[in-house]
Amino acid sequence: MADPRFFVKARNFTVGELAEMLGCTLPKGVNKSLIIDDVRPLQNAQASHLSFLDNIKYKEAFQKTSAGVCIVSSQMIEYAPKGLICLVSPSPYKAYALAAQAFYPEKHPKSNVSKLASIDETAKLGQGAFIAPHVVIGANVDIGKNSWIEAGVVIQDDVIIGDNCRIGAGTTVSHAIIGDNVRLYPGVRVGQDGFGFAIDPNGHIKVPQLGRVIIEDHVEIGANTTIDRGSGPDTIIGQGTWIDNLVQIGHNVVIGKGCIIVAQVGISGSSKIDDFVAIGGQAGVAGHLHVGTGAQIAAQSGVMKDIGAGEEYMGSPAFPKTQFFRQIAALNGLIKKKKRD
Amino acid sequence: MADPRFFVKARNFTVGELAEMLGCTLPKGVNKSLIIDDVRPLQNAQASHLSFLDNIKYKEAFQKTSAGVCIVSSQMIEYAPKGLICLVSPSPYKAYALAAQAFYPEKHPKSNVSKLASIDETAKLGQGAFIAPHVVIGANVDIGKNSWIEAGVVIQDDVIIGDNCRIGAGTTVSHAIIGDNVRLYPGVRVGQDGFGFAIDPNGHIKVPQLGRVIIEDHVEIGANTTIDRGSGPDTIIGQGTWIDNLVQIGHNVVIGKGCIIVAQVGISGSSKIDDFVAIGGQAGVAGHLHVGTGAQIAAQSGVMKDIGAGEEYMGSPAFPKTQFFRQIAALNGLIKKKKRD
Amino acid sequence: MADPRFFVKARNFTVGELAEMLGCTLPKGVNKSLIIDDVRPLQNAQASHLSFLDNIKYKEAFQKTSAGVCIVSSQMIEYAPKGLICLVSPSPYKAYALAAQAFYPEKHPKSNVSKLASIDETAKLGQGAFIAPHVVIGANVDIGKNSWIEAGVVIQDDVIIGDNCRIGAGTTVSHAIIGDNVRLYPGVRVGQDGFGFAIDPNGHIKVPQLGRVIIEDHVEIGANTTIDRGSGPDTIIGQGTWIDNLVQIGHNVVIGKGCIIVAQVGISGSSKIDDFVAIGGQAGVAGHLHVGTGAQIAAQSGVMKDIGAGEEYMGSPAFPKTQFFRQIAALNGLIKKKKRD
Repeated sequence: MADPRFFVKARNFTVGELAEMLGCTLPKGVNKSLIIDDVRPLQNAQASHLSFLDNIKYKEAFQKTSAGVCIVSSQMIEYAPKGLICLVSPSPYKAYALAAQAFYPEKHPKSNVSKLASIDETAKLGQGAFIAPHVVIGANVDIGKNSWIEAGVVIQDDVIIGDNCRIGAGTTVSHAIIGDNVRLYPGVRVGQDGFGFAIDPNGHIKVPQLGRVIIEDHVEIGANTTIDRGSGPDTIIGQGTWIDNLVQIGHNVVIGKGCIIVAQVGISGSSKIDDFVAIGGQAGVAGHLHVGTGAQIAAQSGVMKDIGAGEEYMGSPAFPKTQFFRQIAALNGLIKKKKRD
Repeated sequence: MADPRFFVKARNFTVGELAEMLGCTLPKGVNKSLIIDDVRPLQNAQASHLSFLDNIKYKEAFQKTSAGVCIVSSQMIEYAPKGLICLVSPSPYKAYALAAQAFYPEKHPKSNVSKLASIDETAKLGQGAFIAPHVVIGANVDIGKNSWIEAGVVIQDDVIIGDNCRIGAGTTVSHAIIGDNVRLYPGVRVGQDGFGFAIDPNGHIKVPQLGRVIIEDHVEIGANTTIDRGSGPDTIIGQGTWIDNLVQIGHNVVIGKGCIIVAQVGISGSSKIDDFVAIGGQAGVAGHLHVGTGAQIAAQSGVMKDIGAGEEYMGSPAFPKTQFFRQIAALNGLIKKKKRD
Repeated sequence: MADPRFFVKARNFTVGELAEMLGCTLPKGVNKSLIIDDVRPLQNAQASHLSFLDNIKYKEAFQKTSAGVCIVSSQMIEYAPKGLICLVSPSPYKAYALAAQAFYPEKHPKSNVSKLASIDETAKLGQGAFIAPHVVIGANVDIGKNSWIEAGVVIQDDVIIGDNCRIGAGTTVSHAIIGDNVRLYPGVRVGQDGFGFAIDPNGHIKVPQLGRVIIEDHVEIGANTTIDRGSGPDTIIGQGTWIDNLVQIGHNVVIGKGCIIVAQVGISGSSKIDDFVAIGGQAGVAGHLHVGTGAQIAAQSGVMKDIGAGEEYMGSPAFPKTQFFRQIAALNGLIKKKKRD
């Protein structure tokens, strides 16, 4: 399925290899030496393909699939079509992710420093670094081993970037210290001044933004997302947090580990988001708030108050999810009543 | 009106030429050889200018205009000021668009390949292509005839771009197949990995994004908009669809023909938008949904369920438009009642 | 506090110097020659540091601070911890801004024109201009004195930029006339065509966008913000207006002086925003509307009607703030009633 123009398959795998590699249980009597030559979605998969079922929405596609092998949870086995080999996993999507990585490992360019890059003589480049054309690297920049800087990236003076990072085309970075295995997608803006000024009718007065952006290991930041540097404290993105496209992170925001922040979210200055928080698309968090560990904020919510650990919020202004649904139900009840009157 | 510093007028037109070119009806007895030397909005137009009335909001400006000629619908003629020549059209804005194109055709640069561009030796450039300075074009890229690649664009390996395209400054494209007459504005991000991962407290696990972005003919995509490539299926933008600035299109999204998607809209992964759908600014569509042909989604709506063909939705969460307005009315009625109690 | 890797302190100041420079009142008997060597937030400040208290939320931090000197309003003095020297100011944040500017003045690069920039021979560069590598400057561009063009910027033909401007890395500008002391952050898109077309099932018809973008003096525009040029009239950003990241400004929008527009706001085409308006994050203003002087629009509001001078609006659709809060209260009252029934 993956277009060979863009993707290079590593090799084929037997069913036995896959089951072992993915930690899946295999039904008895299955031919472990059956060769699987690709991964595909349920709808397009054929006999030599591996697929997966994770979202109940696709149950019907599962029942009709022509896939040879499918990763599923134990509860779904009963709906499997005849002849389909089920690889049983407690987390089918995770197992599929690992399988797909094995079939299609990311291709890393060979180490090279383009002659068309502009690299300050005081900058340090780690072994194995790849620097594409028209990159600009400022004074005292320090880039780790095997990091991959795509075309047109601008890294301003004194920035530190760790090992095995990938900085997407056209991204700009200043006033930042970035860990290992971090990926910035194209067009990300890291480290510019936050929106800090004292309001004055004769002209707003800029407050110098004297903090940095700290990005910990294994963070991913989506295309055209903007992360302002701190005003004095730092702006911090915690280890393993994934941020989607077009997100705005204000100055002094501190985000914990393993968070998921969906596209077009905005987090205002000085708010603190604890570990494993999930924030749905286009939601906003006002400034100077605290969101506790594991909290879930639905898409388009407008958070105006602190949220405790594990709580689920929804709506603008955001309320606990159950309260939000009761609000909607009450409103619709009111309309029906009106119509009857 | 158009500042000659930035815009070059092709030539003047007579009233007769304009009427014929635009398919407009001319009132009897009009001097067809009257020369019109520019297009202008109603407020600023003078005797030698062509204007138009399309939005009833500007009726007063129409009644006061000093324009020599104005494109209007037949219903509006009765409000015309004395001496104004009315070109009658069933679609005045469309006629105005064609007139303005005739006065001010887009100026296309002469074919040239900048010596400051970095072009892989395996890339193919069609006849008449214009490649600006600091462009980067990767291996096996195929660019069609007369396509215009502005400064600082990065086109990654294997991308295909059709004829007569214009790729705006600073835009980046990967894993994409782009048709003819497509225009990407500055800073667009096409083809980066979608937000695909299996959640894991020990570190989210990346799901390789093995699809492409397919952009059909005559599509326009606004500045700093982001379009992720598919995860296995492709992300597809249908023929003649226009997308505004800062829009987010998730992986596997399929958008039909002739849609209009206003600024800052977000469409989550795997949703399918049929032909001629209009989505207002800052609206969001959740993942794995279906929006039927010709549906209209108001600005800031939050779509959480499928929408049928031709339906109009509004609100967050989105409801049918009439229901939404009843909700608002009921809410305001409740307040008035409260105040009376 | 400011990391010396990224920030260079100008010098130390005595308490007496600071009081005079900032126009603050000093309590009697204070040692005016005490040396202050840095600025810091309340939580981290030590005896040789200057801090400030502006937001009542941080009153507790104020009561516990170890700062040597703190700028406060007269009302807060009574809560000061023992030994803290209070610099009394009617606008503590403004005074702090000026102090921080004195400690850490922005470092401007020495005038230089990179050999790796592509500058058309007809372009004019003012004295003291700094042009970074991989910048592209088109024909007839006119850049004022001491303006600072960061790496990878693309300035299209005929654009005019005033004195003392700073154009952030990767930003693109076309069809624009920019005043003095303007700052565009990285990735800003100025002057591309607005979203203007006549809807047609056979293919939308482009309306040539024949206006410009006019940016007056002392404007700041945040990272990845997009400002479309006018369709005939101009798009205008008034003097001293500050715009945050990822904001969308449609064609023909006219924004007055001293406005504050927070991240991810969208202002649709042809709307007019008067002076000193504040618009909260993610709010939207529909097209062809008028927002009066000093109006305040809360975050995530959806403005669908004109707003008078000084009015405060909130909600989507937006209502006067008091009405909005009554709506929310009524809704929550309804739920409670339901639960009791």
